[in-house]
Amino acid sequence: MPAAFSFRLLATDGAARRGEIATPHGLVRTPAFMPVGTQATVKGLTPEEVRRTGAEILLGNTYHLMLRPGAERIAALGGLHTFMGWPGPILTDSGGFQVMSLSERRKIDGNGVTFRSHVDGAMVELSPERAIEIQTLLGADIVMQLDECIKLPNARPELERAMRLSLAWAERCKRAFESTSKGRALFGIVQGGDDGGLRGQSARALTDLGFDGYAIGGLAVGEPQAVMLEVVADTAPQLPADRPRYLMGVGTPDDLLGAVARGIDMFDCVLPTRNGRHGTAFTRFGPINLKNARHADDPRPLDEQSAHEAARRYSRAYLHHLVRANEMLGAILLSAINLAYYQELMADMRNAIERGGFADFGAQVREGYKRGDLAPV
Amino acid sequence: MPAAFSFRLLATDGAARRGEIATPHGLVRTPAFMPVGTQATVKGLTPEEVRRTGAEILLGNTYHLMLRPGAERIAALGGLHTFMGWPGPILTDSGGFQVMSLSERRKIDGNGVTFRSHVDGAMVELSPERAIEIQTLLGADIVMQLDECIKLPNARPELERAMRLSLAWAERCKRAFESTSKGRALFGIVQGGDDGGLRGQSARALTDLGFDGYAIGGLAVGEPQAVMLEVVADTAPQLPADRPRYLMGVGTPDDLLGAVARGIDMFDCVLPTRNGRHGTAFTRFGPINLKNARHADDPRPLDEQSAHEAARRYSRAYLHHLVRANEMLGAILLSAINLAYYQELMADMRNAIERGGFADFGAQVREGYKRGDLAPV
Repeated sequence: MPAAFSFRLLATDGAARRGEIATPHGLVRTPAFMPVGTQATVKGLTPEEVRRTGAEILLGNTYHLMLRPGAERIAALGGLHTFMGWPGPILTDSGGFQVMSLSERRKIDGNGVTFRSHVDGAMVELSPERAIEIQTLLGADIVMQLDECIKLPNARPELERAMRLSLAWAERCKRAFESTSKGRALFGIVQGGDDGGLRGQSARALTDLGFDGYAIGGLAVGEPQAVMLEVVADTAPQLPADRPRYLMGVGTPDDLLGAVARGIDMFDCVLPTRNGRHGTAFTRFGPINLKNARHADDPRPLDEQSAHEAARRYSRAYLHHLVRANEMLGAILLSAINLAYYQELMADMRNAIERGGFADFGAQVREGYKRGDLAPV
Repeated sequence: MPAAFSFRLLATDGAARRGEIATPHGLVRTPAFMPVGTQATVKGLTPEEVRRTGAEILLGNTYHLMLRPGAERIAALGGLHTFMGWPGPILTDSGGFQVMSLSERRKIDGNGVTFRSHVDGAMVELSPERAIEIQTLLGADIVMQLDECIKLPNARPELERAMRLSLAWAERCKRAFESTSKGRALFGIVQGGDDGGLRGQSARALTDLGFDGYAIGGLAVGEPQAVMLEVVADTAPQLPADRPRYLMGVGTPDDLLGAVARGIDMFDCVLPTRNGRHGTAFTRFGPINLKNARHADDPRPLDEQSAHEAARRYSRAYLHHLVRANEMLGAILLSAINLAYYQELMADMRNAIERGGFADFGAQVREGYKRGDLAPV
């Protein structure tokens, strides 16, 4: 009998939290980073390779999967876990963010959104109830409410409108979810842009409704890092301490350090795979652009202390060659190396919180980024 | 102390041969199929994944590697085996074929070829001596002579000119190779197009010079399969029985069956990886185009009897989705599945030759291709 969703807070260090999420498909240690499996695959990696990076939970995209291959089809094929061969926990976003950023001719009203599919041009409707239905068909362990995510900066009336609409949808999602739950979790999403007052109203109203976890959405959408971290610092303490907190779509390694320090438990971001495909490695020495000619004759691996084999084994010269020659293997190896670095960073953060040394750990990691990869180690 | 190159013929069945090649980097059972690692990578696969398909030897491309990253650079980084992380045997082609098909503004004369690089536009010279030097720098276990490879159909005087030039280069390659060998092998290349007389002259002259192995080049360049197999059937018996015979750039699974039946021991071809990247799987049931909509809801794996995990594990519906969504993982899985099918076919051919049942085996395999994947198994 698979476990129902639950969250245990195991330790704190300042605002930083060390916890554990149980789901019907297994445990997730927090703070956790979720690789993005947009179209039922983490780009370029088999499920085993994703697992070898240390990932315990993946993110799937409702928007992409509803359009292709279709939620009903995935359900008929046994659900998303079976379809993509990932036996561990899966969180699915609601599609709100992608409807805003990817679809054409979208129309939004109280009932939901209507948009033209970027895949085949068909008109598609997504309501709060349909967003829950799709995520239930996919078999997600953690389901996200439908929300409206808007760019920053934005005028206060527009931020308020989107926040109130997201709240109304939160309530409808909760009602729709209750009949389908089966041990799964539903997360509400705090909106309100960079306005502390709106964020506070959103957090309170969602908490009153009651969710299994709380996300902070509508960040990493154009604002400076300082603004993002300030919103996180203001919002996180207003969320229930006994529920996980998920900062959506964030971010760089430095963003993760800053957000964990302010009480965030979960993250997802395309950066490690997208930047990997474009030739950048994330390492203890900061990001390294392997396109750069200085790597052409360098026999050293990216990081001989890495827990991931690919970071220890292949020379920078070889990775440089693969990137320059536009070979798939360059994208594959750098995606894996980057995800492994992110997971190693999360594991190190968890250890630092447990031993009460998170601030020192963060300073030490940032020191490494500043030093770069040219100084002697 | 690594073994020097040698070839043992272990069994024959009609003209089909079962043998074993020893190289400084290990053994190769023949008939053997060599995956193509053009730019120091088999496209989309790590060396371990290539190994898991059953491959024992890879092909590397002199032309591509001399232009990028450069043979001297690879030598300084420890040679091609170290550079790409493949510890097994490597055969390198001489660059003749790619000079003809890929470079711009090429000029060919008795001394060699001068051409404009497709990478950076630089003018580059490739002589027989330089072709040997490059392959020595790469550290190839099996080195190919420089030859001139021309398209079919072609006029006899042109076929004869290219054949005689290739012969002259064979002699110069042999002289250049003798000072550098270190247990490596040098193969001569029979040319002469579809002209049996020219092929015979080429084979005799090369045999008189004496090589460690003999390739048949200049096929699979536009001629029908029947012409290709006829040239093979005529040429193979004119080559020394105690040396391996390599049919360059061939081919489909059916081509391999036909050529092994006519005495060929080694093959290379981009088909399994290139067609895999384009959505086609090679299977016991013939080629299957996974783009086809009929696979969209099919929960069956490609071949539950395959020795390769990916062919047994992922549903056709999932592979169809990955191909349609243009996801890298589709190309990766189908490349691996196809290489594994090729290797399984070679292993089955080796077993069939050993037990004297090659003709029956070939008929049975072709029966499977004809039946297709729609009939009940």
